[in-house]
Amino acid sequence: MTLPLAPRMEATEAPPVMEARRWLEGVVFPPDRPLINVSQAAPMEAPPEGLRQALAEAALNDPAAHLYGPVLGLPALREEIAARWSVAYGGSIAAGEVAVTQGCNQAFCAAMATIAATGDEVILPTPWYFNHKMWLDMQGIAAVPLPCGADLIPSAEAAEMLITPRTKAIVLVTPNNPGGVEYPADTVRAFYDLARRRGLALVLDETYRDFDSRSAAPHDLFADPDWRGVLVHLYSFSKAFRLTGHRVGAMIADARRLAEVEKFLDTVAICPNQLGQTGALWGLRNLGQWVAGERAEILARRAALEAGFANLPGWRLMGCGAFFAYAEHPFPLPAPELARRLVAEAGVLLLPGTMFRPKDDPAGARELRIAFANIGTAGIAELIDRLAAFRP
Amino acid sequence: MTLPLAPRMEATEAPPVMEARRWLEGVVFPPDRPLINVSQAAPMEAPPEGLRQALAEAALNDPAAHLYGPVLGLPALREEIAARWSVAYGGSIAAGEVAVTQGCNQAFCAAMATIAATGDEVILPTPWYFNHKMWLDMQGIAAVPLPCGADLIPSAEAAEMLITPRTKAIVLVTPNNPGGVEYPADTVRAFYDLARRRGLALVLDETYRDFDSRSAAPHDLFADPDWRGVLVHLYSFSKAFRLTGHRVGAMIADARRLAEVEKFLDTVAICPNQLGQTGALWGLRNLGQWVAGERAEILARRAALEAGFANLPGWRLMGCGAFFAYAEHPFPLPAPELARRLVAEAGVLLLPGTMFRPKDDPAGARELRIAFANIGTAGIAELIDRLAAFRP
Repeated sequence: MTLPLAPRMEATEAPPVMEARRWLEGVVFPPDRPLINVSQAAPMEAPPEGLRQALAEAALNDPAAHLYGPVLGLPALREEIAARWSVAYGGSIAAGEVAVTQGCNQAFCAAMATIAATGDEVILPTPWYFNHKMWLDMQGIAAVPLPCGADLIPSAEAAEMLITPRTKAIVLVTPNNPGGVEYPADTVRAFYDLARRRGLALVLDETYRDFDSRSAAPHDLFADPDWRGVLVHLYSFSKAFRLTGHRVGAMIADARRLAEVEKFLDTVAICPNQLGQTGALWGLRNLGQWVAGERAEILARRAALEAGFANLPGWRLMGCGAFFAYAEHPFPLPAPELARRLVAEAGVLLLPGTMFRPKDDPAGARELRIAFANIGTAGIAELIDRLAAFRP
Repeated sequence: MTLPLAPRMEATEAPPVMEARRWLEGVVFPPDRPLINVSQAAPMEAPPEGLRQALAEAALNDPAAHLYGPVLGLPALREEIAARWSVAYGGSIAAGEVAVTQGCNQAFCAAMATIAATGDEVILPTPWYFNHKMWLDMQGIAAVPLPCGADLIPSAEAAEMLITPRTKAIVLVTPNNPGGVEYPADTVRAFYDLARRRGLALVLDETYRDFDSRSAAPHDLFADPDWRGVLVHLYSFSKAFRLTGHRVGAMIADARRLAEVEKFLDTVAICPNQLGQTGALWGLRNLGQWVAGERAEILARRAALEAGFANLPGWRLMGCGAFFAYAEHPFPLPAPELARRLVAEAGVLLLPGTMFRPKDDPAGARELRIAFANIGTAGIAELIDRLAAFRP
């Protein structure tokens, strides 16, 4: 006997990254042409030694590192985030407006729980981040696609046309995953004004903010004292400090919303894990210079990738920044088939655009996402060579 | 301007443990009568040194401890759980039928996502574990209370009367939180048979199984090869190994359900944190004898509490086991008021029964939960003295 499964869960797509990993099964990569894995935006090395020592020290000698902590996170970490973000964004954020979560995905789920429920609608620019789409599907919330133009920048005017009485929020990811583009401050402001005018939440996922190529703040929304009525900011400690395996993210929202977030996190998490928070706090206090170096390296890789694509006949780079390049390929093959063949024939694992778009959107078949952050400039040159040599 | 919050979230009760913590604000506890905090089932000390060293060693020298891992957990940990649970329950559980989660609360949320959705019903014996009720409220799933008798043991016959076409599952917690009672194997089996007959899932939360007073397996459900069609088992590593701050729990369910669980966990967690999993695995491999000692100590505390209550005039111990005692008090005060006065007048923090029952259930006003696991037998004697001396 088997029980029926909840229909919404069955209808939700499986995580694409796992599907892509299965493509590797049974494929042998010769030593002179090892796999180039550009499928996921994940650091592949451990964090700096000082951070590792801080974790080890806490594990050995701080009993609190093993005990429950506050649902919304360690007060010292919330204060550090509030103070640093206030400076970085030229705004005013209190510690009581910061929540620490078990990763940024969880911050998104928690935020959404306070914003929308079954039957509501949320606008997501396409190509979208698939975990956002998956969570909305599971919750019975309609993800309304907002197609971006060729530059992958969404338009607030186009978004306004999609608003219905069921619309509760607009979600932006900047720098964008999967598109790699950094949304101009004016674009973010236009969405903010739209959200405020129409009584929607603006959820701004800035997981990749530490790798933005611009020196100024990426937007000025926190400088508006009214941000609390509109804005929910999401962040991840995974990328900047190489803490992916520790699951630490954050949300900034008004205190009234955080009281609701606290209920959600109490049931889903009880509290963020303590050692991960120790690492995030140590990183904020000690790794500023180190992160600046990491950013410079990522920007160098981005430049290498852009230069490489400029010489790739037929390809069009639609967006490139943070950890990602998003490109149109020149081949008469749908992207999923192309991606699978690139594994076997070029030793390259990347994700097809179909994983980032609604099923009925034909654009995905022409597109590929390349998570280039993990490979050095030599690896990028090799990647470009392999793509140039590929013949379908 | 403020945005409306999702009505379901606003209607969900805030976590009671946090409310209780606020009762402490501004209260001064004299040095000769310090606070006795029996509000939460949480170890207050660090795990054994060997486990702490294993965490420190991994943090320092194992790069994988800092990187993403599989959504459903480390293969070695899943295998270890499968092998040990198979022996303990006299059944057959494969590694592919085990998921590791960021704590047992998350395992419950993930399981529920595969079982029920908005508009469905789930039966929970009362008094219930409030986080279960909260999650169901947030999801728009009706928590249908199944009142237990004076012995706090639920009846499968009574449960059957509550089943409607919308019922999707029955949830049992054994040893029980908040009631402390160990459900007899026959009771668990009767619910299993009922669930199977009526096509429901039986969700069995065995967070406190390591502290069960019985030497035999607490039920024989895993010995039935058909368990996969009915049973979802939940577990926590927080209590046995003192890993509350690391957030590691587990679920055992059939592989088909786990494929759905994987989607949920991918969006809410991406993966369980790696160091917590390292600790859980090290504990399973090395702390068997140590946990046996912990269990003996908890059983001694339980005996002390039972002996103390036998001499407390007017009080009735309804259940006592694992980390909890659940009792009827003799005072002409509603339990919430009594609990607040006990903080100020007796230096005791415990939770009123109203936190574990539906709002319209009058029984909660007469009941208190005492999480006695954190205090030694001397502390228990002091607790009994203070309760005996209290005059409303």
